[in-house]
Amino acid sequence: MYKKPIIGITMGDPAGIGPEVVVKSVTDNGIVQACHPLIFGSYPIIFSAAKRFLGKASVRKTVWPEDVRDSQGCLNVLACTNLDHRKIKTGRITRISGRMAADSVFCAAQLALSDQIDAMVTAPLSKKGLRLAGYDFPGHTELLAYLCTARSYAMMFVSKTYKVVLVTTHLPLADVAKSISKRKILGKLVVTKQALQRYFGSKNPKIAVCALNPHCGEDGILGSEERRIIIPAIKAARKMRIRAYGPFSSDTIFSSRVSKDFDCILAMYHDQGLIPLKMGGFGGAVNVTVGLPIIRTSPDFGTALDIAGKGLADPEGMTNAILLAAQMADKTKRK
Amino acid sequence: MYKKPIIGITMGDPAGIGPEVVVKSVTDNGIVQACHPLIFGSYPIIFSAAKRFLGKASVRKTVWPEDVRDSQGCLNVLACTNLDHRKIKTGRITRISGRMAADSVFCAAQLALSDQIDAMVTAPLSKKGLRLAGYDFPGHTELLAYLCTARSYAMMFVSKTYKVVLVTTHLPLADVAKSISKRKILGKLVVTKQALQRYFGSKNPKIAVCALNPHCGEDGILGSEERRIIIPAIKAARKMRIRAYGPFSSDTIFSSRVSKDFDCILAMYHDQGLIPLKMGGFGGAVNVTVGLPIIRTSPDFGTALDIAGKGLADPEGMTNAILLAAQMADKTKRK
Repeated sequence: MYKKPIIGITMGDPAGIGPEVVVKSVTDNGIVQACHPLIFGSYPIIFSAAKRFLGKASVRKTVWPEDVRDSQGCLNVLACTNLDHRKIKTGRITRISGRMAADSVFCAAQLALSDQIDAMVTAPLSKKGLRLAGYDFPGHTELLAYLCTARSYAMMFVSKTYKVVLVTTHLPLADVAKSISKRKILGKLVVTKQALQRYFGSKNPKIAVCALNPHCGEDGILGSEERRIIIPAIKAARKMRIRAYGPFSSDTIFSSRVSKDFDCILAMYHDQGLIPLKMGGFGGAVNVTVGLPIIRTSPDFGTALDIAGKGLADPEGMTNAILLAAQMADKTKRK
Repeated sequence: MYKKPIIGITMGDPAGIGPEVVVKSVTDNGIVQACHPLIFGSYPIIFSAAKRFLGKASVRKTVWPEDVRDSQGCLNVLACTNLDHRKIKTGRITRISGRMAADSVFCAAQLALSDQIDAMVTAPLSKKGLRLAGYDFPGHTELLAYLCTARSYAMMFVSKTYKVVLVTTHLPLADVAKSISKRKILGKLVVTKQALQRYFGSKNPKIAVCALNPHCGEDGILGSEERRIIIPAIKAARKMRIRAYGPFSSDTIFSSRVSKDFDCILAMYHDQGLIPLKMGGFGGAVNVTVGLPIIRTSPDFGTALDIAGKGLADPEGMTNAILLAAQMADKTKRK
């Protein structure tokens, strides 16, 4: 019998919009039909968010994830942080808010690794909060890779139009060229292929690889990285039976019909991938960490401290992230 | 009495698709209504292109630009190169083809500078051809800046959705960060404002300035150029009464509604500006050189040697470039 997947949802940093978008999205009709959501975080914080942003607060403490299957109509919270919620000030990232956010991620990751939940979706946390709490990770992706002891992983963004994987992520532009290597590109291609096969039903996926330089480096006049690094990486990937193609000039691949022939596009740096992705609809892109032993997605917005607590946050990105996680979990179950 | 502007159109490198898109576009109904086109190039080459791609060849040699006003129904060619057209091989850039292309540009620029034509539109030439012919310019823009002795100029791209100006153009990505400076950004803002006022009817234009680094450098964690260079340039521009705003994260400014509040977006490097621009419709973006004493536009495609001579070239980009040049010429005349 088909069982809906259980999706763990972390509340994010409680000083930001995390709790608000979480309670708004888990009560969405599409979500309730697609999966059993289970919120990881502080019970009183979720309780007050539900009261404030939903107008009612039917919230239940859950200890065993399987219990969520018989509790339609109320929000299930797995209380995994007992820090004092009264110390949280909306809009202000502190050591406490950072630790609450981190605790939720640790707990959800453990339960995902032990197969008690089918996927996890993370609401936004703050790097500053993580650091104040004593964790030196630039963000969720690296923290989860550490928790899962994953060596090779990548950020994938999924929108209605494209799937994009980044070779380098949050780096100054000046450091991008020296940070790409044949080995790194090849590693990203390997985990990308695996993820496309495992979670997106592509049997033998085709991946387009972007150039680093304008006009693909124009035969070396505008940069040698294509010749020295990217083309050799594509050739090595082909030897490993990965259908990688390119390099393609990044100002034409996204706009041309050719992009539809590919299951995914590998971009060399953040803005190269994110500019075209966001043009395909802001809020619509979901971040997926590929290369982990667990399924993890998240919306592509931050803690948005400026609007936190005002009821203005749009839950659409979060809803999309939960729906995608549920679809990915279904794909692996039905195999 | 209103007189339609006379638009000089260079034939580009005769080994590429230049002559084909020129003859196709100047016979377009919209063009004939908006302006008097005058082709600069080799008479026999335009004659044979007209015969081949239009099926007929009503082509006239013109010596005085004003003569085009009473010659509806035939193509006007100002023969400005007497090199042997029989030495031209379609698809093969040579010293001769490069010189023909350069000769056309020289002549059109001279006539534009002396006000005998109202604007010039350039069909694609090849950097390689220019070099073989002995001219060491990376492209039209620099060649024209030299011919016009313009010190401060910029590449602007105009699509239906955006106007984008580039701070750096054809550079390896590795060199971008070290190539931007406060002085350079300020120079681009000055010529951009002038062009928006002069040619596009914006009385007091607003210009959005992109960040260089992802997330605007995130307070210096992802790069210091915003703090060191871009923000000081914006402040200096404001002191000169240029309404410059930003820096804006490049992955959000193009996709957000905010971009509609601005008359133009200043991008720091080629792909940052060209990815979003081309996503707004390939073939639809027109390149304008701002900061010259003359009006110059061009389509955003190259010589396309692979399809040259096959009748497959789409003249739409060229038609758009001519129409925009005519509109810009009208704006200055009516002042």
